[in-house]
Amino acid sequence: MMENLLSHINNPNDLKKLTPNQLPQLAKELREFIIDIISQREGHLGASLGVVELTIALHYIFNTPDDLLVWDVGHQAYGHKILTGRRDVFETNRTLNGISGFPKRSESEYDTFGVGHSSTSISAALGMAIASKLKGDFDKQHIAVIGDASIASGMAFEGLNHAGVTDANLLVILNDNAIGIDPSVGALKNYLTAVKEGKNPKQNNIIKSLNFDYSGPIDGHDLPKLLSELERLKKVKGPKFLHVITTKGKGLQLAEEDQVKYHAPGKFEAKTGKIHPKNEENLPPKFQDVFGHTLVELAEKNEKIIGITPAMPSGSSMKYMMEAFPERALDVGIAEQHAVTLAAGMATQGMVVFCNIYSTFLQRAYDQVIHDVALQNLPVIFCLDRAGLVGEDGATHHGVFDIAYLNCIPNLIICAPKDAIELRNIMFTASQGLNHPIAIRYPRGRGEIVDWKKPFESIEIGKAKCLKKGPDIAILSTGTMASNVEKAIKELGQAQNVSHYHFPFIKPLDENMLNQIFKNNSKIITVEDGVISGGFGGLVNSFATLNSYKNKIVNLGIPDNFIEQGSVQELQQICQIDVTSIIKTISTI
Amino acid sequence: MMENLLSHINNPNDLKKLTPNQLPQLAKELREFIIDIISQREGHLGASLGVVELTIALHYIFNTPDDLLVWDVGHQAYGHKILTGRRDVFETNRTLNGISGFPKRSESEYDTFGVGHSSTSISAALGMAIASKLKGDFDKQHIAVIGDASIASGMAFEGLNHAGVTDANLLVILNDNAIGIDPSVGALKNYLTAVKEGKNPKQNNIIKSLNFDYSGPIDGHDLPKLLSELERLKKVKGPKFLHVITTKGKGLQLAEEDQVKYHAPGKFEAKTGKIHPKNEENLPPKFQDVFGHTLVELAEKNEKIIGITPAMPSGSSMKYMMEAFPERALDVGIAEQHAVTLAAGMATQGMVVFCNIYSTFLQRAYDQVIHDVALQNLPVIFCLDRAGLVGEDGATHHGVFDIAYLNCIPNLIICAPKDAIELRNIMFTASQGLNHPIAIRYPRGRGEIVDWKKPFESIEIGKAKCLKKGPDIAILSTGTMASNVEKAIKELGQAQNVSHYHFPFIKPLDENMLNQIFKNNSKIITVEDGVISGGFGGLVNSFATLNSYKNKIVNLGIPDNFIEQGSVQELQQICQIDVTSIIKTISTI
Repeated sequence: MMENLLSHINNPNDLKKLTPNQLPQLAKELREFIIDIISQREGHLGASLGVVELTIALHYIFNTPDDLLVWDVGHQAYGHKILTGRRDVFETNRTLNGISGFPKRSESEYDTFGVGHSSTSISAALGMAIASKLKGDFDKQHIAVIGDASIASGMAFEGLNHAGVTDANLLVILNDNAIGIDPSVGALKNYLTAVKEGKNPKQNNIIKSLNFDYSGPIDGHDLPKLLSELERLKKVKGPKFLHVITTKGKGLQLAEEDQVKYHAPGKFEAKTGKIHPKNEENLPPKFQDVFGHTLVELAEKNEKIIGITPAMPSGSSMKYMMEAFPERALDVGIAEQHAVTLAAGMATQGMVVFCNIYSTFLQRAYDQVIHDVALQNLPVIFCLDRAGLVGEDGATHHGVFDIAYLNCIPNLIICAPKDAIELRNIMFTASQGLNHPIAIRYPRGRGEIVDWKKPFESIEIGKAKCLKKGPDIAILSTGTMASNVEKAIKELGQAQNVSHYHFPFIKPLDENMLNQIFKNNSKIITVEDGVISGGFGGLVNSFATLNSYKNKIVNLGIPDNFIEQGSVQELQQICQIDVTSIIKTISTI
Repeated sequence: MMENLLSHINNPNDLKKLTPNQLPQLAKELREFIIDIISQREGHLGASLGVVELTIALHYIFNTPDDLLVWDVGHQAYGHKILTGRRDVFETNRTLNGISGFPKRSESEYDTFGVGHSSTSISAALGMAIASKLKGDFDKQHIAVIGDASIASGMAFEGLNHAGVTDANLLVILNDNAIGIDPSVGALKNYLTAVKEGKNPKQNNIIKSLNFDYSGPIDGHDLPKLLSELERLKKVKGPKFLHVITTKGKGLQLAEEDQVKYHAPGKFEAKTGKIHPKNEENLPPKFQDVFGHTLVELAEKNEKIIGITPAMPSGSSMKYMMEAFPERALDVGIAEQHAVTLAAGMATQGMVVFCNIYSTFLQRAYDQVIHDVALQNLPVIFCLDRAGLVGEDGATHHGVFDIAYLNCIPNLIICAPKDAIELRNIMFTASQGLNHPIAIRYPRGRGEIVDWKKPFESIEIGKAKCLKKGPDIAILSTGTMASNVEKAIKELGQAQNVSHYHFPFIKPLDENMLNQIFKNNSKIITVEDGVISGGFGGLVNSFATLNSYKNKIVNLGIPDNFIEQGSVQELQQICQIDVTSIIKTISTI
């Protein structure tokens, strides 16, 4: 039975037993396997479908794991995982205690470098290649597979610029499908498109100018071509670059047609690709949509408002602003550093800039926040989506460090609204002018308020709120953790003893309110969805010490270790910031 | 008198009154003026000498400050400062309450964007240019002047990649002198050199491929050529790129001949350029040299040791390793992100990587430290030079945030040795293998120990040290602040009352020792040369609260605002971490 090839492949050695003629059949099976599992279990679909042939060809030609293969970003590595011993556990993909949705060193020797954020593969593979040479291994190959959206990020250029002056055995494979999560942008993308269309004379080659042995572009779904070109490149020493053209979502018609939607489509019908309809009508909106729609609303009234997103028009819902005011909403590609300093440059000219970056990706622009924005006290408005625990994307993507790394920056206001209405109002307040930069953090997913589109109200900067008064224990929460605290108080039924304070501002901290709280309540519990050390809890502790308060304090938040993937609910339990843990803490403090 | 041109120029309007024929004379005077002042007052010399003609031409042709001029890095902007109203205060350059060594918005309307760290100019100027267009100003020009070392940094590429798909009035001027602080490196540099030498066919142009209107290369010391080309470009709309060739140190022969030394030569004889000889024989070494020489010593015994510097061979003293083991010491250019992930890649292959990055520049690679190193728990050894207050370079360069931004990262060890011997020993200890990444921070300048090259000793990770015992007040210091504390105790003569504990490790914190200290001493003073909030002081406060200690605590450290330039001594006084302030705190706590 031809259909049985995949079930016999437990590692690349099994793969190598097949004849080249059998590989297209294997590609078909691998594609069906991915579609079958992801249609039921959810996950990243389009990227992995696009590299099925490339994945097979790489493991067929190269001697993995001795030859070292690094996948950039890694959400395209499902085929790689399935062919390298993880076929039978693939259905646990992205779940608690299951396999990670990204390559991960602790999971397999075939996963040579942990990824998740983009554009690291060239640097990592070059480091490996230089190490091999120093160890006297001159034959080993080191391969970075990187997409055209990721290679446009500055870090990738730094890697290419260095690699080009080495004689390291590095093979960079450009997986050019003209799309990241959203369609790729930028001058390099236009250049690559011209190359593909044969419009660029071969001698005018950016990659060759950087001293790479360039070949391509070749069809990345043509297995014989891939095999012969990789076979050739295997024997070439030094830095090499292969330009491969693929189609994201290849093999599932609907996924090829709507590549943005099928990046991570949720559950769908395996056969047709049809996404199961969801009734979302009466659900509270996603926070990202509250951001996106509110921005348009504000922009309608203030022509100085500009939106910037580094490659996340869909994920951040900046797309609404891009549709409404295309001139005033910019997708700059995977370029967080540029995004922040571009915002700073605009702010010097009086523009009101909303720069939306996922919390975890703002780590990429940390220096720019300090050096270009905060030092000059430019009133850029950072909107940090995916703050806190993000769930299934796991350790690489949780936005749990932002409070700690932003709090030490002078001039910066840090705000964590408790719900959609407060998010909306702090955006309004910031757009009116604060004379300081502000970072507004909010989580992935939906809030709890259906009827959120209320008239705008100004928020007083630095003011905490008493949500419930009680004489004994005070619970201090920041951000959407307010909701877990409210539920805990309700469930506990001890409402009379417990007070609850919401701190929308971590910086400046409302010290007046803290003084009242510490005077009126003997026991204090802080709750946040970020790291405690250097976070909200740490700040409250420090306040207590410096003001000589003797109250007992318990801090709930993310502990000092990396948190893996799982549902947000599961991860909140692990971190003890879920409703049950809060109840337990109230009962035992 | 021809020699009097400069003294009449108080702003670019005065400059525009000169005829083009007078400009070479002005260039001569401006050069002499810079040399004269810098020879006595110290500062960055070579970079500003190299752009004298370009600076004059830009202000002569363009309508500054309405046309917006951004200098990348900004240490080449002395001529710009002198021509824009700061001639008579130029002698206060880089001093407390004087003018900044870098362009600074609060100093002059001609300083359109504050700089210091490299490679921000294209993003900033593009932001301004897009803002101008949105405001309906289609004639305004926006100019970024960037060196060839800075343009090779990823962030600059991100800016170019975006600019190329806009129609913004952006002029990028590449000041190509083949050197940053040390000679430029990388494939782009080789490419630019080939262009200069006419070896690259014009059609093979990276910049044109990114959709810029490219012109050059032209001689940046030829005023007529500069004037006519800038005049032409002034009328061209959209993104433009002018490639200008200059000589760093131009006009001072010794500075042209030894461009690395004359980047910032200290005091010298204005006429000849001869640097005043210093008798440094019996001085304690600079910390950077302790690092540099110790690394070579360790590398001699362990062939797995590798050194990485992003463009700071001289400043970090990585040059000793580069001389001793050229294969194992890599200058990757201004590419901190790449440097860190390259180190991570090498570490996966068992290499022992010392990645040396100035504290302030590690901000550029924050995500890579979290995502590529700490998350994978790869034992990279980060050596953070210029930690704490750096003095005359000012607000952009102080390394005061590192403890706060690193402390929230799981798996990472943070060490701040108190002197050269401890620095040497922690480097030795780390090279033996810690199973964790470590960040070792140490300050700019010299220590106090002449005889530092003692036999290596292992340091126990996470252990604090009692340097002096006393029953009443405990002073807890980290890093080289130990020295100020020791002097304070000595001067005070109250030695019997005061105990002094040195915490070489901020993470992990020695909680056993803290428990002893809090039990034995009623009053606690913490001292550090970093920000208090989220720093060492904040951690000690949090420890006290969580352990219900009631001791009085005072934190000394960098307050929550940006610290300007001045001598380290002056800035320590401002931050109240100098000997006198510590004495005062001991007396008044």
